[in-house]
Amino acid sequence: MSGTFYAVIPAGGSGTRLWPLSRANNPKFLHRFADDERSLLQATVDRVSSLASPEHTMIVTGAAHVEAVGKQLPMLPTENLVVEPVPRDSAPAIGLAAAIIAQRDPTAIMGSFAADHQVRDAGAFVEAVRTAIAAADQGHLVTIGLNPTRAETGYGYIQQGERRTDGVCAVRAFKEKPSATLAEQYLASGDYLWNASMFVWRVDVILAEIERQLPELHRGLRQIAADWSAPSQNETVARIWPTLPKISIDYAVMEKAAARGRVVTVPASIDWTDVGDWRTLGELTPAIEDGNAVINTDDNNGEVVLIDTNDSVIVPAAKRLVSLIGLNGVIVVDTPDALLVCARDRAQDVKKVMDRLSADDPHR
Amino acid sequence: MSGTFYAVIPAGGSGTRLWPLSRANNPKFLHRFADDERSLLQATVDRVSSLASPEHTMIVTGAAHVEAVGKQLPMLPTENLVVEPVPRDSAPAIGLAAAIIAQRDPTAIMGSFAADHQVRDAGAFVEAVRTAIAAADQGHLVTIGLNPTRAETGYGYIQQGERRTDGVCAVRAFKEKPSATLAEQYLASGDYLWNASMFVWRVDVILAEIERQLPELHRGLRQIAADWSAPSQNETVARIWPTLPKISIDYAVMEKAAARGRVVTVPASIDWTDVGDWRTLGELTPAIEDGNAVINTDDNNGEVVLIDTNDSVIVPAAKRLVSLIGLNGVIVVDTPDALLVCARDRAQDVKKVMDRLSADDPHR
Repeated sequence: MSGTFYAVIPAGGSGTRLWPLSRANNPKFLHRFADDERSLLQATVDRVSSLASPEHTMIVTGAAHVEAVGKQLPMLPTENLVVEPVPRDSAPAIGLAAAIIAQRDPTAIMGSFAADHQVRDAGAFVEAVRTAIAAADQGHLVTIGLNPTRAETGYGYIQQGERRTDGVCAVRAFKEKPSATLAEQYLASGDYLWNASMFVWRVDVILAEIERQLPELHRGLRQIAADWSAPSQNETVARIWPTLPKISIDYAVMEKAAARGRVVTVPASIDWTDVGDWRTLGELTPAIEDGNAVINTDDNNGEVVLIDTNDSVIVPAAKRLVSLIGLNGVIVVDTPDALLVCARDRAQDVKKVMDRLSADDPHR
Repeated sequence: MSGTFYAVIPAGGSGTRLWPLSRANNPKFLHRFADDERSLLQATVDRVSSLASPEHTMIVTGAAHVEAVGKQLPMLPTENLVVEPVPRDSAPAIGLAAAIIAQRDPTAIMGSFAADHQVRDAGAFVEAVRTAIAAADQGHLVTIGLNPTRAETGYGYIQQGERRTDGVCAVRAFKEKPSATLAEQYLASGDYLWNASMFVWRVDVILAEIERQLPELHRGLRQIAADWSAPSQNETVARIWPTLPKISIDYAVMEKAAARGRVVTVPASIDWTDVGDWRTLGELTPAIEDGNAVINTDDNNGEVVLIDTNDSVIVPAAKRLVSLIGLNGVIVVDTPDALLVCARDRAQDVKKVMDRLSADDPHR
């Protein structure tokens, strides 16, 4: 029998490509999208609820968001809301969760799942995680890789190696977001999976790997975890956290571990989307007519009037009338204090608006 | 010496092609545009101020607007604000002004100038009106025609006849808005002028012409004018006004008068624009860069961020950040309760949004 399973949900990024709805102080994982009843974060917790109880579900989030996270997830014990004083990317965030869990339960298995992805097929997801847990129990670092359905250039890829008997494959390498030509080659070869940053491992195994590759990070995480829930917690975190390296777990740990043959993947077919930008979100939303998608969010939906308009994405989130005439492939995001009008094929460039705003601009 | 000159300014239309800034309850003539200090209405009054004193300047407007008009024009006597209980187009509006002036001063000359036009060249305008007054004093119905500078399809035209010695030409016909081909022919011929609905005539002459062509309108106007400023004014207006025909002075009176040789025109070269739609207004506004025009209005201007965007018109009138990415030839009008995003070449279709709204929709 395997160790207790903990679900860890890093909820850190502010999601600037979903500006102006997603803001530094109101990030995308707190929002409802695409007619869902629950926010992206709540849906992520729901999705793991058959695998991990609230006592074994942990959110790693920023100090600015912890209150809102607690409100959305009242069933979680407050000690399971792990606060990063300042963002330090995914290696410190996920590593801290592993270290805290290891203090409680040294043989536990943890899975890490981003708070801002959308999964339409919860059954296939749970089945893949169960397979991953079994492999993790054997001491593997496991990643769930998604069978690609198109030559997507917006995701990283996992290069598969030999297939094993227990439903997993070796991982030969992690690949960064490819060019369109390379993405076509990946798709045609059948050897590549989408990297959805879904990781499953024993906490002792990942901590040992971090110690091998990034000993200073490992030492810092162990020190913080040792004082976790003690009176000195805040003092220790404030002293050590800012010294930790700002680095992602994919590139900092998993790539080198894969090169050493320590990583396996569970290839899975799951209807999954990284809710990365407005174009993606528009594709997730059923079109009303002429290829137009109206995305209702939260409680400020406004009326929409479309005249001779097609293939456009409208987010009427300011309780105002939004009208479009004679347009093709435009994204309109209407919020109470900021408006975005963007060509659909330029959705990746929304964050460029941030570059034009001053650092303390309230619209960030 | 000619009779006293009265300036009459019909301020009736709500300007639906400038929606959502211009509304039924907040029409375009009350707004400032294109960095002007004064509203379109105020600028119109300023323009005639060297020709007509405030005592001889009259506004014909709707009941809903009279308070706002009075606030913008505090120098006008309140009895010079003529209220239409319901809109009845320009023949009743201008005819009523003529009838009221005739009660005061039967030999007066009046000029009628729309409240929502923009004139950049006030000197040329005044000079043309002076020429028109001299011709009107001789008993002509006079229209000021503008030498066309392009093959505009958005304006009506005046076909000139023989030139006379006193700076005026006979008018052979009024022509409706032409096709592009016809507009090119008009421009090439040199015989056609833009019809800017600027009329000058003796009040007795226009009233006689109305009596000849529309005797029932003439009778109604005379009845209302007879009771004007009397205790029974409101009762008489309420009884008669709704029975008057809803018809424009151009087509109801001037066309047939021209056919009878009663109309002359003063050909003039004036930098003039009918501020009809957002495309026109964008062309009036100096471009900031890449052909983009930002139109600031009133006091709710917001910040504008443009990335890879050209030939667009932005009206940030809701104190919000307005950002555009990767767009070409788009009109964005941002107001506190309604947003318009429209292809620049579809500016004429803005009023189609009204057709989609219910009759009592507050966004009208």
